[in-house]
Amino acid sequence: MSLSTQPYKGARDFYPEDKRVQRYMFDVLRGVCQRFGYEEYDAPILEPTELFASKTSDEIVNEQTYTFEDRGGRSVTIRTEMTPSVSRMVAARRQELGYPIRWFSIPNIWRYERPQRGRLREFWQLNVDIFGVATVAADVEAMQVADSLLKEFGATSSMYQIRINSRKLVNEFLEKNLGLDETQTATLIRLIDKKDKMPEAEFVAEVDALFSPSQRDKDEPGQLLQFLGAQKLEDLPQALQESVSTTELKALFDQLQMSGISNAQFSPSLMRGFDYYTDIVFEVFDTDPENNRSMFGGGRYDGLVGLFGVEPVPTVGFGMGDVTLQNFLQSHGLLPEIAPEIELNVVLIGDVQEKAAPLVQELRQMGLTVAVDISGRKLDKQIQSAEKRGAKLVAFIGESEIKSNMVKYKNLQTGEEDTKSPQRLVSLLKDHRKALK
Amino acid sequence: MSLSTQPYKGARDFYPEDKRVQRYMFDVLRGVCQRFGYEEYDAPILEPTELFASKTSDEIVNEQTYTFEDRGGRSVTIRTEMTPSVSRMVAARRQELGYPIRWFSIPNIWRYERPQRGRLREFWQLNVDIFGVATVAADVEAMQVADSLLKEFGATSSMYQIRINSRKLVNEFLEKNLGLDETQTATLIRLIDKKDKMPEAEFVAEVDALFSPSQRDKDEPGQLLQFLGAQKLEDLPQALQESVSTTELKALFDQLQMSGISNAQFSPSLMRGFDYYTDIVFEVFDTDPENNRSMFGGGRYDGLVGLFGVEPVPTVGFGMGDVTLQNFLQSHGLLPEIAPEIELNVVLIGDVQEKAAPLVQELRQMGLTVAVDISGRKLDKQIQSAEKRGAKLVAFIGESEIKSNMVKYKNLQTGEEDTKSPQRLVSLLKDHRKALK
Repeated sequence: MSLSTQPYKGARDFYPEDKRVQRYMFDVLRGVCQRFGYEEYDAPILEPTELFASKTSDEIVNEQTYTFEDRGGRSVTIRTEMTPSVSRMVAARRQELGYPIRWFSIPNIWRYERPQRGRLREFWQLNVDIFGVATVAADVEAMQVADSLLKEFGATSSMYQIRINSRKLVNEFLEKNLGLDETQTATLIRLIDKKDKMPEAEFVAEVDALFSPSQRDKDEPGQLLQFLGAQKLEDLPQALQESVSTTELKALFDQLQMSGISNAQFSPSLMRGFDYYTDIVFEVFDTDPENNRSMFGGGRYDGLVGLFGVEPVPTVGFGMGDVTLQNFLQSHGLLPEIAPEIELNVVLIGDVQEKAAPLVQELRQMGLTVAVDISGRKLDKQIQSAEKRGAKLVAFIGESEIKSNMVKYKNLQTGEEDTKSPQRLVSLLKDHRKALK
Repeated sequence: MSLSTQPYKGARDFYPEDKRVQRYMFDVLRGVCQRFGYEEYDAPILEPTELFASKTSDEIVNEQTYTFEDRGGRSVTIRTEMTPSVSRMVAARRQELGYPIRWFSIPNIWRYERPQRGRLREFWQLNVDIFGVATVAADVEAMQVADSLLKEFGATSSMYQIRINSRKLVNEFLEKNLGLDETQTATLIRLIDKKDKMPEAEFVAEVDALFSPSQRDKDEPGQLLQFLGAQKLEDLPQALQESVSTTELKALFDQLQMSGISNAQFSPSLMRGFDYYTDIVFEVFDTDPENNRSMFGGGRYDGLVGLFGVEPVPTVGFGMGDVTLQNFLQSHGLLPEIAPEIELNVVLIGDVQEKAAPLVQELRQMGLTVAVDISGRKLDKQIQSAEKRGAKLVAFIGESEIKSNMVKYKNLQTGEEDTKSPQRLVSLLKDHRKALK
């Protein structure tokens, strides 16, 4: 029985045409992060299981990890997110690092899920984190980076919305204003997190059921629903207007506005599933009515570095998945056609492989990317193959070209043909390369 | 109890200074591969276990894989090499692809081994493969690429040697000249593969023991040792001089010589452990007496694609590990100092963060990589942090700089200070960037 040619379910093979798209996307991400002063790091894809056990959401740890024992009996997990690893790395050098630390990474991540549109078992995720800034300035910057990433791809403000909330504000409202206890608060937050995934009436009923009769008498469920329905900070109850969280949010929205971000929206029901968020959280939504959903997000998590037995470090970060990003770019027509990197496909006429080698070497030394068909097949087969590889320019080299040290070439797309010296051909192609940039 | 900050044993964290080195190395590898017409691909790090079971060496499969059952009961393995995956991908599109296919990839690979110098559990491996060329032209090209890779890093021919053998030639000698049966041949090949790792006398004794008394009477062990001791093709027994394998090797050495590769060496005891090699194999050795060992290698494996139930495709490829490469570059003084990508570290004087934002934005829009210290700490703390991050240029922005729209800056390495307009500063830094290229 022969082996299957399929990749593992929910994971992708990247053929050259797919890899080119990935590289284009990652190069854009990398460029924007660096422009904001972020440096790239990386960590092993396998981590000790306990690293994830206490920090990631229960759903992910219990149902979605790839966890197993290594040959030495240690329990290891393929990372389901990068945040635990980066927190570990910062903790390991807590004292030596120069704050604020700005780091980014584009790791692959594995989650055992049922594959569906926009959700795969293996995906890549840009992680952007700033460590060492306790003020809202870090949150502002994270959102500026997120915004710049999408704009760099050509997105306009109307294509997405940045929804923002404060976990602290929600806690304050639930605990101080409504006087709920910790258990009620935790249960409610989980419920609110699922709000958008259930019918409105069901949500209202479930909220109602969580309150005691005496709380219901004070219409606390109604107050909560009103809180969650706030469209702007001014809609919040009077008692919250002067709170620290509201003041921070005000400063945040002001600074976003000043830096030209006009599509930020206060969204008090936004929770983000992860338990580790401690303050402001945000999510970027696609505004396309066909695809109106959360694309990526993040927030402040001040507690993670401290779990490693060092002084805590205030942290704000976000993660952006490659599949969601690619869907967004495609549906908004923002993904350009990426041409193959091979600039010249050489077709050999006759048995001239050895004799043609110096000419080919010359072209490469001048910096050209050159693929030579060394298969020894007939001319038409060689041209067909080049076409299959998406080749644009094919050069023909035979006895006469070698003698005259000239290259005859054809543009397969335009049909244009010409003969040039290697130098002229190289400068032609280099001009073309510049024009692409 | 707090969590450990250590990465999993045998795997590395890449802090920004480590990641910069990795990116430098990979960019060089990528550039050379593309110049030869190779296109980048990728495959999932998890594969069905059966993909490795029949193709990789027994030692790796039985003792070194990370194999486990996923939550759906499928046995999966973290890749121990890329060859099975790339063969699978070619087989999946056997008909549509344009031959010769030239593909490269730089995947991470996991092997459960005892970590030691040059050998880790997680490492990256450049994989370069050419599919669809049955002649020695493909072997020549693989070695040309290998040679160009090292030369691109600045290595000279005297720093390494390319050792070459033909599995076919060895089989021919053992089966036809000595008349050994298949079992004897297989056992001998395994023994020869270990030759360099055992004392000479032990090897001779073990060889001797594998022959029957009648074979020993004909001095077959002696003939084998003589065969293995050949330094050049002319040293081979007369009966092999005209064989197909010898003729191919002759053509190979001639073509290497013609393309300027003078450090190729016939090495009849070179086997390479993997069972899948079918013909010519090669390994690149570090000639440094302190570090004289195999760095990387490859060869022809015509049988793998066919295991997927399609017509076989002749293939030549090689793999080069990042750890070995880095050791080679370091020990030969070929690894340059890689500066941080952040060109400008902005220190804010006073509470001017919001007012400084437009100036910073201007610098970024002109293409500069700029990190702003938004921590609100004292000046000396901000400068110290920049130094910890390896910063070269620090800009000071306070009320007066904002008013005059000028940037005051200091080169932390030379102590040089100056004040310039944003435009002048950007063109200064862009000149510097060009000078680095």
